[in-house]
Amino acid sequence: MTATHDSFHTLRVALLGHGSVGSEVARLLTRDADELAQRVGARLELVGIAVRRPRSDGEGGLDPALFTTDAMGLVTRDDVDVVIELIGGIEPARSLILAALEHGASVVTGNKALLAEDGETLSRAAQAAGRDLSYEAAVAGAIPIVRPLRESLTGDHVRRVLGIVNGTTNYILDAMTTSGSSFVEALDDAQRLGYAEADPTADVEGFDAASKAAIIASLAFHTRVTIDDVHCEGITGVTSADIASAADMGCVVKLLAICDRTPDGQAVAARVHPVMIPDDHPLASVRGAYNAVFVESESAGRLMFYGPGAGGAPTASAVLGDLVVAARNRLLGVCGPPERTHAERTVLGIGEARTRYHIALDVDDKAGVLASVAQVFAEHEVSISTVRQEGHGDDAQLVVVTHTATDAALSQTVDRLRDLPMVRDVSSVMRVEGEGQ
Amino acid sequence: MTATHDSFHTLRVALLGHGSVGSEVARLLTRDADELAQRVGARLELVGIAVRRPRSDGEGGLDPALFTTDAMGLVTRDDVDVVIELIGGIEPARSLILAALEHGASVVTGNKALLAEDGETLSRAAQAAGRDLSYEAAVAGAIPIVRPLRESLTGDHVRRVLGIVNGTTNYILDAMTTSGSSFVEALDDAQRLGYAEADPTADVEGFDAASKAAIIASLAFHTRVTIDDVHCEGITGVTSADIASAADMGCVVKLLAICDRTPDGQAVAARVHPVMIPDDHPLASVRGAYNAVFVESESAGRLMFYGPGAGGAPTASAVLGDLVVAARNRLLGVCGPPERTHAERTVLGIGEARTRYHIALDVDDKAGVLASVAQVFAEHEVSISTVRQEGHGDDAQLVVVTHTATDAALSQTVDRLRDLPMVRDVSSVMRVEGEGQ
Repeated sequence: MTATHDSFHTLRVALLGHGSVGSEVARLLTRDADELAQRVGARLELVGIAVRRPRSDGEGGLDPALFTTDAMGLVTRDDVDVVIELIGGIEPARSLILAALEHGASVVTGNKALLAEDGETLSRAAQAAGRDLSYEAAVAGAIPIVRPLRESLTGDHVRRVLGIVNGTTNYILDAMTTSGSSFVEALDDAQRLGYAEADPTADVEGFDAASKAAIIASLAFHTRVTIDDVHCEGITGVTSADIASAADMGCVVKLLAICDRTPDGQAVAARVHPVMIPDDHPLASVRGAYNAVFVESESAGRLMFYGPGAGGAPTASAVLGDLVVAARNRLLGVCGPPERTHAERTVLGIGEARTRYHIALDVDDKAGVLASVAQVFAEHEVSISTVRQEGHGDDAQLVVVTHTATDAALSQTVDRLRDLPMVRDVSSVMRVEGEGQ
Repeated sequence: MTATHDSFHTLRVALLGHGSVGSEVARLLTRDADELAQRVGARLELVGIAVRRPRSDGEGGLDPALFTTDAMGLVTRDDVDVVIELIGGIEPARSLILAALEHGASVVTGNKALLAEDGETLSRAAQAAGRDLSYEAAVAGAIPIVRPLRESLTGDHVRRVLGIVNGTTNYILDAMTTSGSSFVEALDDAQRLGYAEADPTADVEGFDAASKAAIIASLAFHTRVTIDDVHCEGITGVTSADIASAADMGCVVKLLAICDRTPDGQAVAARVHPVMIPDDHPLASVRGAYNAVFVESESAGRLMFYGPGAGGAPTASAVLGDLVVAARNRLLGVCGPPERTHAERTVLGIGEARTRYHIALDVDDKAGVLASVAQVFAEHEVSISTVRQEGHGDDAQLVVVTHTATDAALSQTVDRLRDLPMVRDVSSVMRVEGEGQ
């Protein structure tokens, strides 16, 4: 503490992880020290950075003495006020966060996988310790969505959340839509340009989006939804033909995290899968690697939050926002509102989700094919919205869009269609969202 | 307090105003009493509603005894914990809010005019009293923008905010764009459909948007900007020809509140006027009476917040969110982060704003006209981006789009153009925003 600043208290901050986000947080803590002190009402002193491998030099102009490989030693120091966890994964992140809370520190984390798997343990530990646990960076990077759900909409009733919460898959689907390229070509491009990782599994299989869906559903519905509750389908099966079919319908294909509740509010559900949404839906114009979260609530109506969903600087912005609030609370000796998971709501499986299907069938070009197909829908009490016959002979195709029904009924309908002798192939099945349902 | 709820404290809420927002707030406080108690950790009891004229019946199923015409008596009761001010205007709202704070109540308000004129007095009184002053409802209705600016982005540096913050004018401009109607026709329609008031002055002249610009600029730049600092032009001068010119350039016309700062952060400015923005800008697709606030910040990048900007239910959602947070703070005996207007920044006038102009000139179809016009731009050191000559003879027109320059230089250039003998009329002048500048 320098002489010029001795009117200020000092709060001590420990950082776990020094990757793209961690190094940016460290840089801004140093560069903006005076301004952050004004905003907090206390100086923030970075007292240590836990890294996996020892560093011989002080990266980014930082004092080499700050770096340590003893993360547990750092978080259990008596003088640490806030711990920022940016190492990701389940362990040792969970043990470190729990130890930090037990030792009296507030915690800021961007660890979506851990929150989605075991947010309840973290949240209980924070409440027991009377400390803040904040995680704006865990969902949709820089976009403020956790705080709006926890605070701004806390006097309202959220009905449904539709989110584009994974930039890699949005980039790939957008490229397929714009250029007509295949999934494999678009993925190659995305990897070359740094929008997809060398091992893209977590993104393209929807796992990353599923973690965020669990976190959003828990916040929006004041209940506890974990990653295991989230039905998850990725985009590896999305074809150029699906994209073209969507365009024919005035739609685009997006990978959405969908969190909704039953009209009585007693049950909730969360799922991730590709959907067709109409071109004029606000989510349809979210391009490239951008993210957006669309919220439908009872009083506020339709809200959307849009911005960069990843990247070192945007994620660091979310971390620093949480840090300033947590630090102010430490200074006041209080903690922010607890997560109130006061509602014990049933979490529904995908079978009970209500949605619409777009189904493309390669069929024999014979009289009676439409009647046979329509009969299968009727048997499962699935109502048809539109049906279109295309091509002739070997190219004959039926494209059916249903009204809303349960996913179970729709999925059973598709299974039965596969068995029809006149149906040679079910070439595309995709859910349709984003209209009044 | 009923026997079932005696594990809860009770917090007492007074409501000033019982119009479309106030009556919705009262209805939700009653209907959702149990759920709000869970979220706050205390029951919220509505102890009085101040109205201008006495009510003989208890509207909306409310106890008639709740209504009073003695607003000052209500806010100075010793047992009121939170006052919700929804009467609007400068007085008596200001005196009532100040009295409420002095008597120990936290205040939730949606009063944009008062905040834009004298937010500093209110904010100082709240800090002196150690009470919350919250006003999410004052800017863009249900859209959470005040809290994100105050908290989520508090570790970041906002560079610029562009907002569609008035639903009436967005509805009118959208109708002009979609149907080709004139301003007067579109205003008539808007009035008939309830999107514009019988006296639309505050909306169409930009005064309402200017209030919101002052509030946003103060929050975004941690300084104090009042309505008097905001340059304001409305949409009454926007013609069908302007809309058509915008379309020719791949743009739409929007009334924007623009808050920006100089690159060094030492000076800020706020202005409201019609602008042309490119079709692919996220704000361009904000249709009808919806609002959106687009934020460019140093670390987070480009964020957008979208939703309904007015209406009883959406505004009530914002009020209740503020109320829950203020009530929790009362229960904890703390108040939220103070407004830190720690930065004493210069507020620039419109002349120093940096922007681009779109200028349409009716000219004589003679050799040398382009050279004469270009000479005027050069004399004012305004660089031309594109120039297009249209029509012949009496219909000859030059359409010029400039590069970025100060508004003063651009405006002087237009004045000089008017004096050129070859220029018969300057038929349209509009600023262009939304690109890298």
